[in-house]
Amino acid sequence: MAKPTAADRNLTWQAGGVSQAARRRLLGQRGCVLWLTGLSGSGKSTLATALEKRLIRQGRLAYVLDGDNIRHGLNADLGFKPADRVENLRRIGQVAALFADAGLIAITAFISPYRSTREAARSAAGPGRFLEVFCHAPLAVCEGRDTKGLYRRARAGELKDFTGIDAPYESPRSPDLLLDTANTSVAACVRRLEQLLRDRKIIRGRSPS
Amino acid sequence: MAKPTAADRNLTWQAGGVSQAARRRLLGQRGCVLWLTGLSGSGKSTLATALEKRLIRQGRLAYVLDGDNIRHGLNADLGFKPADRVENLRRIGQVAALFADAGLIAITAFISPYRSTREAARSAAGPGRFLEVFCHAPLAVCEGRDTKGLYRRARAGELKDFTGIDAPYESPRSPDLLLDTANTSVAACVRRLEQLLRDRKIIRGRSPS
Repeated sequence: MAKPTAADRNLTWQAGGVSQAARRRLLGQRGCVLWLTGLSGSGKSTLATALEKRLIRQGRLAYVLDGDNIRHGLNADLGFKPADRVENLRRIGQVAALFADAGLIAITAFISPYRSTREAARSAAGPGRFLEVFCHAPLAVCEGRDTKGLYRRARAGELKDFTGIDAPYESPRSPDLLLDTANTSVAACVRRLEQLLRDRKIIRGRSPS
Repeated sequence: MAKPTAADRNLTWQAGGVSQAARRRLLGQRGCVLWLTGLSGSGKSTLATALEKRLIRQGRLAYVLDGDNIRHGLNADLGFKPADRVENLRRIGQVAALFADAGLIAITAFISPYRSTREAARSAAGPGRFLEVFCHAPLAVCEGRDTKGLYRRARAGELKDFTGIDAPYESPRSPDLLLDTANTSVAACVRRLEQLLRDRKIIRGRSPS
């Protein structure tokens, strides 16, 4: 009897699981990672939450990963040292990839200042499954909002290595979408995010008027 | 103007996100963690995969977390030392809890030999969201199957601290379901798992004849 080839083994392995096509049929959407990156105060969490709510209302399955549900659970063992920050984002990238694999639209809202960690998240998600969205607003605008009071603390020296103050933010070179969040309303940003999902065939259906 | 109370703040926070009720309506099911525990060779992965497939065919959303998608991704940084094994299961418990929070039936298939780590996973999932399933088969039966050749390697001394050989397995004291996988067919086990999900109101609908 012939030895099984790699293709045979792969087929056997595939046969055991649920195919991506079956998940697409069930959910009427393709799984993906929508990765929001930008300075603190650039609107990532607000947009993530607004988009999630809108998609769920439309019968689409989305889930937000952000500091609220990651830092107190999965990454509760990590601090804010450079190595911990890298590991924080590495795990988030891997978890988001699992959500995408399950068929969900995983929306992540983290500053994620380094290109290398964002590229690692892209690799984890796999080809065609990672959309990088640059939430762009000038530092002065973000600092002016300062919803969490973090900039004030960073300026006072209470927070070290704060992105935009004493740590760098590496802007995406060719994001899948750039949102000018200083000059665009939340509603308009959400519409553009939805359009991106339609353009990339993650979701279907006509654009609302 | 009155200062906001804790309830006000909570309401504000809640208002931002998608409610569990909205997810239940969308998916027609409640999210939960179905945690399969038992010796290597006790049938955990086979049952997890068969149940996932069956639920998806019924239009229900399930996702299996197992060694294949966890050890090479999220937990690729961990080895097999005792501390690494604890951390491996801690993270799996946290990720499974996130999937349950998103509305999915997260099915985990890991030996998870210690009560303490299983209890930590239960806590992470939250009340009413964690179902512990003991896949029970005598060691001799599991070793006889030895589908991955691990027992042979453990007996040969090539694998250290192998559960059932030279490391303990702490049986669940009061599992939500005990499956006698040495004497029950895969199909019958899957039916009992489905019945458990119905009994706990995770899924609805009549039991199939």
